[in-house]
Amino acid sequence: MVTPVSILDDSEFRSKIDPSGLIERLQKFPEHCRQAWELSHKIDLPPEYSKAKNVVISGMGGSAIGGDLLSDLAALEPTLPIEIHRTYDLPAYADESSLIIATSYSGNTAETLSGFRRAIERNTMLVVITSGGILAQEAVTANIPTFSFDFTGEPRSALGYSLIGPLGIMVRLGLISDKKPDLDDALESLTCQISQSIGHDVPAESNPAKALALSLENKLPVIYGGGFFEGVARRWKTQFNENSKVWAQWEILPEAHHNAVSGLKLPKALRDLATVILLRPEPIHPSIAWRYEITEELLESVDISFCDVAGAGNNPLSQILSTVLLGDYTSYYLALLQGIDPSPVSAIESIKQRLSE
Amino acid sequence: MVTPVSILDDSEFRSKIDPSGLIERLQKFPEHCRQAWELSHKIDLPPEYSKAKNVVISGMGGSAIGGDLLSDLAALEPTLPIEIHRTYDLPAYADESSLIIATSYSGNTAETLSGFRRAIERNTMLVVITSGGILAQEAVTANIPTFSFDFTGEPRSALGYSLIGPLGIMVRLGLISDKKPDLDDALESLTCQISQSIGHDVPAESNPAKALALSLENKLPVIYGGGFFEGVARRWKTQFNENSKVWAQWEILPEAHHNAVSGLKLPKALRDLATVILLRPEPIHPSIAWRYEITEELLESVDISFCDVAGAGNNPLSQILSTVLLGDYTSYYLALLQGIDPSPVSAIESIKQRLSE
Repeated sequence: MVTPVSILDDSEFRSKIDPSGLIERLQKFPEHCRQAWELSHKIDLPPEYSKAKNVVISGMGGSAIGGDLLSDLAALEPTLPIEIHRTYDLPAYADESSLIIATSYSGNTAETLSGFRRAIERNTMLVVITSGGILAQEAVTANIPTFSFDFTGEPRSALGYSLIGPLGIMVRLGLISDKKPDLDDALESLTCQISQSIGHDVPAESNPAKALALSLENKLPVIYGGGFFEGVARRWKTQFNENSKVWAQWEILPEAHHNAVSGLKLPKALRDLATVILLRPEPIHPSIAWRYEITEELLESVDISFCDVAGAGNNPLSQILSTVLLGDYTSYYLALLQGIDPSPVSAIESIKQRLSE
Repeated sequence: MVTPVSILDDSEFRSKIDPSGLIERLQKFPEHCRQAWELSHKIDLPPEYSKAKNVVISGMGGSAIGGDLLSDLAALEPTLPIEIHRTYDLPAYADESSLIIATSYSGNTAETLSGFRRAIERNTMLVVITSGGILAQEAVTANIPTFSFDFTGEPRSALGYSLIGPLGIMVRLGLISDKKPDLDDALESLTCQISQSIGHDVPAESNPAKALALSLENKLPVIYGGGFFEGVARRWKTQFNENSKVWAQWEILPEAHHNAVSGLKLPKALRDLATVILLRPEPIHPSIAWRYEITEELLESVDISFCDVAGAGNNPLSQILSTVLLGDYTSYYLALLQGIDPSPVSAIESIKQRLSE
């Protein structure tokens, strides 16, 4: 008997559906992280930045999510308040004692430009993360330290830079403890993960990302995350939106136990549509670990399909990166299954286009 | 011709489905707010609390949402960083210079108790918001200022206390500007809103909450909010979960323009299920106002039903309160339509029960 080959294992099909080669950008994620760490150590940072009283990361979408992941990591140790500001302007409290990290892959994001300019007006401490655009130009003019990186692709595919760039900067300023050993370990794991587990060359029958994608066709992915996986859950949600072009939802534990779990039964059609993916970091507060079990029991009792994804990696950074990458690949394979080019996001591009007119 | 009477106008039916009288708790929302303001001015607050460098609101579910709404309001003026901490413990940065507001209606919420105890250990500034339970007892023992209120009902129905209590305290400490005139104006509007627009006595044909509920039967409510309506959108989402026992989703503008709008088309079944409710505050940043229009165009282009809800009220607090109340009533009427008692939340209660064993 010949085992049927999954369409997901077919390289020709892949090239046809993904002509821009998003798969290569995924494969290079460890390399992006490594470059970002090095770059973050080469820019000049005023020493007084290490006295910041709070940090505001001004960014949107694929650039902002790097801030969420960084904030989850920072929350594991004594550090200062970090706010991810996903709109125009800046929080009213941001002043000379605040460090603003204005992050926009394109350098042309309207909200981030607005935050950057407000930071200049208020004379805050300020760093820019960008690959170019108006933000890069204005940063040069105003002599603002800039983490400038060279990357062509989707803003969301630049996550290696938009996460590890700010992380390296905060480590250098002493605002977070050193992460170099953790990062080295993580990058080694990521490379193995791609070649041996979730990369395109690994056949569907032994590839967890392909298997998960196959289970999600015509479904609503609902991602639950808790502990230091809150940002990871959000990343999965948005990657399903952007790569796979599907609806997706995210919920946070334990908060979901105070509201969301009360709405699992209705409408009935949604129970059939939803597949819950529980992302579970290790180690995790025992009281939160217990909440994952309870959630699974509740889902079972109302016949909603679910699967459990345990974080892999020797340290929290490694777990965050590898679980993000699993979601990135899964959303990519789901796009292929649907015959949809994972790269372009026409609705988002049309908004940006109209905004610039 | 006799106009058919909506089931939503039938008082006997209502009493049968809502035997505990949640409707009365909704009606008393303005009164809860008024009492909460007065109570907040009667407790002893150490004057040094006004020197707090940051505020952490430790709470979950119906108690935490008061913190979100407060934080949206505070963001409109220069104030300090406010974090809503929805899990165990406290953020690592919380120390002697932080004001922790531990808020739990029941006083028995595990996560909040954990945050409260951590605050005692770290010797932070600390205030408790509760109606009793272990939290009230431990606060007495440790001599912690307590906003203690008398209310019997669902934690989510105690929002008047869990929002206006902390607001009054922060105003008294000078951490937010005075809100008394805005509150007086808001409460007058709320009373009119209930008697003339959304209360049970107003018939379905001229009642916007009943009309909205009627449009949501067997649907997935998806709430979009931006500007100072982020917390309001979240409140609507959780009230649909808890009162109506349905799935619901919330998205924030402009962030949704960077990811969610890319996933509107698939799966096709979800396009038919979803109804998007756009909550729009006034005034609003012109760039965000424009994003509401764009969102409606996008929804129209993919045939997803939607409706626009403009905030009413003469000031932001009034707009927040009246839009929250509209959502509360809508989710209540949706429960009635489905023949479901809006009060009990068995899944949530069973978790709390097991947690206490």
